[in-house]
Amino acid sequence: MDSKRIALDVMGGDAAPEATLRGALRVCSASQATPLPPERIVLVGDEARLHAGLEELGGNPGFEVVHASQVVEMHDGPAAALRQKPDSSIAVGVGCVKAGKTGAVVSMGNTGALVAAATRGLGTLPGVKRPGIAVTMSLAGKPLTFIDMGANIAPKPEHLAQYGLMGSIYARECLQTPVPRVGLLNIGEEESKGTELLKTANALLGKLPIEFVGNVEGNIIFQDRADVIVTDGFTGNVVLKLLEGFAGLMLGWVLGELKQHGSEYAGDVLSNVKQKIDYAEYGGALLLGVDGAVVVGHGRSDEIAVANALSLAARDLDAGLNEGIVKGVAAASPSSATDPVG
Amino acid sequence: MDSKRIALDVMGGDAAPEATLRGALRVCSASQATPLPPERIVLVGDEARLHAGLEELGGNPGFEVVHASQVVEMHDGPAAALRQKPDSSIAVGVGCVKAGKTGAVVSMGNTGALVAAATRGLGTLPGVKRPGIAVTMSLAGKPLTFIDMGANIAPKPEHLAQYGLMGSIYARECLQTPVPRVGLLNIGEEESKGTELLKTANALLGKLPIEFVGNVEGNIIFQDRADVIVTDGFTGNVVLKLLEGFAGLMLGWVLGELKQHGSEYAGDVLSNVKQKIDYAEYGGALLLGVDGAVVVGHGRSDEIAVANALSLAARDLDAGLNEGIVKGVAAASPSSATDPVG
Repeated sequence: MDSKRIALDVMGGDAAPEATLRGALRVCSASQATPLPPERIVLVGDEARLHAGLEELGGNPGFEVVHASQVVEMHDGPAAALRQKPDSSIAVGVGCVKAGKTGAVVSMGNTGALVAAATRGLGTLPGVKRPGIAVTMSLAGKPLTFIDMGANIAPKPEHLAQYGLMGSIYARECLQTPVPRVGLLNIGEEESKGTELLKTANALLGKLPIEFVGNVEGNIIFQDRADVIVTDGFTGNVVLKLLEGFAGLMLGWVLGELKQHGSEYAGDVLSNVKQKIDYAEYGGALLLGVDGAVVVGHGRSDEIAVANALSLAARDLDAGLNEGIVKGVAAASPSSATDPVG
Repeated sequence: MDSKRIALDVMGGDAAPEATLRGALRVCSASQATPLPPERIVLVGDEARLHAGLEELGGNPGFEVVHASQVVEMHDGPAAALRQKPDSSIAVGVGCVKAGKTGAVVSMGNTGALVAAATRGLGTLPGVKRPGIAVTMSLAGKPLTFIDMGANIAPKPEHLAQYGLMGSIYARECLQTPVPRVGLLNIGEEESKGTELLKTANALLGKLPIEFVGNVEGNIIFQDRADVIVTDGFTGNVVLKLLEGFAGLMLGWVLGELKQHGSEYAGDVLSNVKQKIDYAEYGGALLLGVDGAVVVGHGRSDEIAVANALSLAARDLDAGLNEGIVKGVAAASPSSATDPVG
């Protein structure tokens, strides 16, 4: 049962600890389709503040509380933060997984610090070379997963191939996509396109036991040609932030136009469209490939996003995602994933 | 006067030759704010079709016509196309610049073939190491220029630094931005962020006589923090296509929402917003750094986009952009741009 529990970094995120506490309460409330039992959640953070916060919100329904005396701030450098704050809520949360007290850790705090703490503290799964961050967005009513969104900004071809494999297993096990189509983000569809990294990655992906659909260009990502998009962490991070920024800009333009027409339902239109691009709907990002379930939430997460992040962690654990990844990597490795090309 | 003339590849683009011929006529018509004299334009393509096409559109107002017996198709590989079609309208158009018959070449055709033909045929300007494609979009009512959008997918740091310099000169000379702010697209604002390529490029850009504002992240590109965004050609190309695809998707969502509300002005809202993201407004992309003015139009260009592309070429030539780049590169090189870091 401990392996199904989830450590929540209550101190992480712009609206912590209120949003994180409310999110933990929400995901356990009867209003949810499949509420989590409070016993599955371990709250990590300043003990006094957590108890006081829960008191204000109506009491503790059964969460275990684990004290952490320090907090990694959003602007802290990841390496320095881990060195100087060994008792931070991020470090203690990751420590819960390491010690087998929980199977998952969820944080809306400093992404770099969480990724570094999890990678170093938990290590990679057997056969996995480098962890990658998978982010799932809802587009055209279907989930679309990008991997890697920033864990590995200068990957090798075999890392990208494994991202395709792990992303495919994730989409199948956790997103109900029976045969996920995996594409490689590139500047042209032909195999000969792109950098040497991408040409080699394309060849490696083609040998894996996945539904590899080849290179996909930026403009056709949104045309339902793939369920999983593989990219290096630099491009992935730029793309993710760009979409956020661009979506905000466009929504602003549309709002301006609607107001000029004196529209009284401009707000509805915006909030409905916003929901489609809000990746909080899927609970944030998963760090795939580490020995534990690690959910990287968005710093701006509100109560609902926190609840979704906890649900994602529960889904990951219940589906046995990491067991699936270990099996998938082992099955793929004799044939190709770990071999050099040619 | 020859150096102020513009060769137009009439055969290039999805709607060629009709859209290209109409565009040439439009840019010379009295309806334009500053119409071009027809003598400035040299039409390149199948002579018989060009004459017949002009006849249908009311006659030739004074364009010179240069025959080209072949056409590079959109799906042709650039290298093969140049080898196998030496008399293509792209090759002949670039040849006009090389021979001094015109100062500029404009094509809506195969981008790879145009870039390859221009780079090989015209060579780089004195001091320029690698050409880069600059694309200007209108955001928040101001022009924002990205460079490079695909000419150089594996650049060296000194290439990125020169892109910043050339982009800055372009924005100043052709886009009326007196002191262009130049940013480096990266995954964090700190100088220590990103790949080795970007760390070194950041240091080089900081030494140039330009207004370098440091690293900019994908989500703040749209917040008017820079006028010129420097990036490698791989990321640039992905970003450009992604914005196109995402904009289309979002506009579709908004349209769907508006229709559900029974809005009768949904079309107006969309077309106004579309215009803001349509980089055809600025006439397409410029290949900066080659010895000639080279405008890379969008394959989907209509008559207006073709006219804008011709205007861009004229503005480039009238402003003496390349003379400015040669001077700028020479002034910068003793101090830093061509030196290794440290």
